[in-house]
Amino acid sequence: MSGRLTVIGLGPGNADQVTPQAANAVAEASFFYGYKPYLDRLELRDDQIRIASDNREELARSNEALSKAAEGHSVAVVSGGDPGVFAMAAAICEAIEAGPAEWRAIDLSVVPGVTAMLAVAARIGAPLGHDFCAISLSDNLKPWDLIELRLLAAAGAGFVIALYNPISKARPWQLGRAFECLKAILPGITPVIFGRAAGRPDERIEVFLLADADAEKADMSTCIIIGSPETRIIRRGERPALVYTPRSATGSKR
Amino acid sequence: MSGRLTVIGLGPGNADQVTPQAANAVAEASFFYGYKPYLDRLELRDDQIRIASDNREELARSNEALSKAAEGHSVAVVSGGDPGVFAMAAAICEAIEAGPAEWRAIDLSVVPGVTAMLAVAARIGAPLGHDFCAISLSDNLKPWDLIELRLLAAAGAGFVIALYNPISKARPWQLGRAFECLKAILPGITPVIFGRAAGRPDERIEVFLLADADAEKADMSTCIIIGSPETRIIRRGERPALVYTPRSATGSKR
Repeated sequence: MSGRLTVIGLGPGNADQVTPQAANAVAEASFFYGYKPYLDRLELRDDQIRIASDNREELARSNEALSKAAEGHSVAVVSGGDPGVFAMAAAICEAIEAGPAEWRAIDLSVVPGVTAMLAVAARIGAPLGHDFCAISLSDNLKPWDLIELRLLAAAGAGFVIALYNPISKARPWQLGRAFECLKAILPGITPVIFGRAAGRPDERIEVFLLADADAEKADMSTCIIIGSPETRIIRRGERPALVYTPRSATGSKR
Repeated sequence: MSGRLTVIGLGPGNADQVTPQAANAVAEASFFYGYKPYLDRLELRDDQIRIASDNREELARSNEALSKAAEGHSVAVVSGGDPGVFAMAAAICEAIEAGPAEWRAIDLSVVPGVTAMLAVAARIGAPLGHDFCAISLSDNLKPWDLIELRLLAAAGAGFVIALYNPISKARPWQLGRAFECLKAILPGITPVIFGRAAGRPDERIEVFLLADADAEKADMSTCIIIGSPETRIIRRGERPALVYTPRSATGSKR
């Protein structure tokens, strides 16, 4: 008897940014697995059950959720933002690949959402308006050297860079080190956006120049966008400045 | 008298994937500018007016929309997917920067949406589960050499690559050439996803290996995701295969 598992993206945190598809998927599931702050966003009925876990336990959470679904239940695993971007969809796939054959028979679906970099970008203009990349700055699951290599490759080729998981208590120095790497190859006037809790009541979106970017201003809820050499700032007097990356590029920096 | 301009992301095309924030923004605007297929998705009232334009006229459309807003009207510019990803938000910012000072006083907001690569990824598993980049394959606004440089930099550093604007009548050879470039440095068994019209009735999601990827199978509505050397395929018998990129990476390919 194989049940159903839906990996649901709840968007950046504002209820207005949850798609109807995600809301419907929440209404249809019986058991909800996820990191507690994401589960806390849900308004569940009395017959719907939450099973919270910590944010470093993605694989254990996936195994539990898949076991429950394999028993024939309707299970949801929730992520903030989009579940396919540094979130639960990959953990579920890893667990399916390593798990018992019956897990491959589960009716799996993934419901996409607005991921953090899109929400932050929307609040400041269009910094992702040209070629860009997304890098998780967490070295829990990959070596730091590989992160530096990717930062340098991306900046050197003119990509705008969105950094996820920039900092945490267990990873205090990585963001500062990333800025140091990038300062070696990007102009000091490159715009850097610190986007915290975009769309939520405690939102804080700030723009710095790379030369002045201070890693200590970021926290776990911050998504950082580092411009390319083409990225521009438009001053607007009393209105907040806009940051955008033009649609055209000359490639003359190389 | 300065009005209001909202750049609205309508998501991949399924009404279930339009956020409430986007739906509310549509309800509040009076004049709608956009590429006709996106305007056609809207259910407007009799008092709301559409002004359609072609998909190569982003800057002219932006100027028209900003002029209308500067007259004091409530104006919407609509994009499919997310307006900040190879779409109208950057064109609006370009027009503001080049335009009259009064355009900087317009109340501008951007409403994010689910961009194509997220919708495609959700339908196949989690191919964007690790570091990734998004590249527009259109050489209308940047030189082809720069696109090749970015493809090689991204693939060489282990990024998954999402390609937007892969092909059109005016750009028939670029996608095939991109595959040739990538074949030189990625394994022939690298998964390549052709995701067309994700979430819409005419959806078609297909997985090939890079060695067999045929550019002619793509069209203007296709978003292409090229795996990294870490990206894996999970066969599931009668169910469609899953494609995912694990959260961990060793960096051993370099």
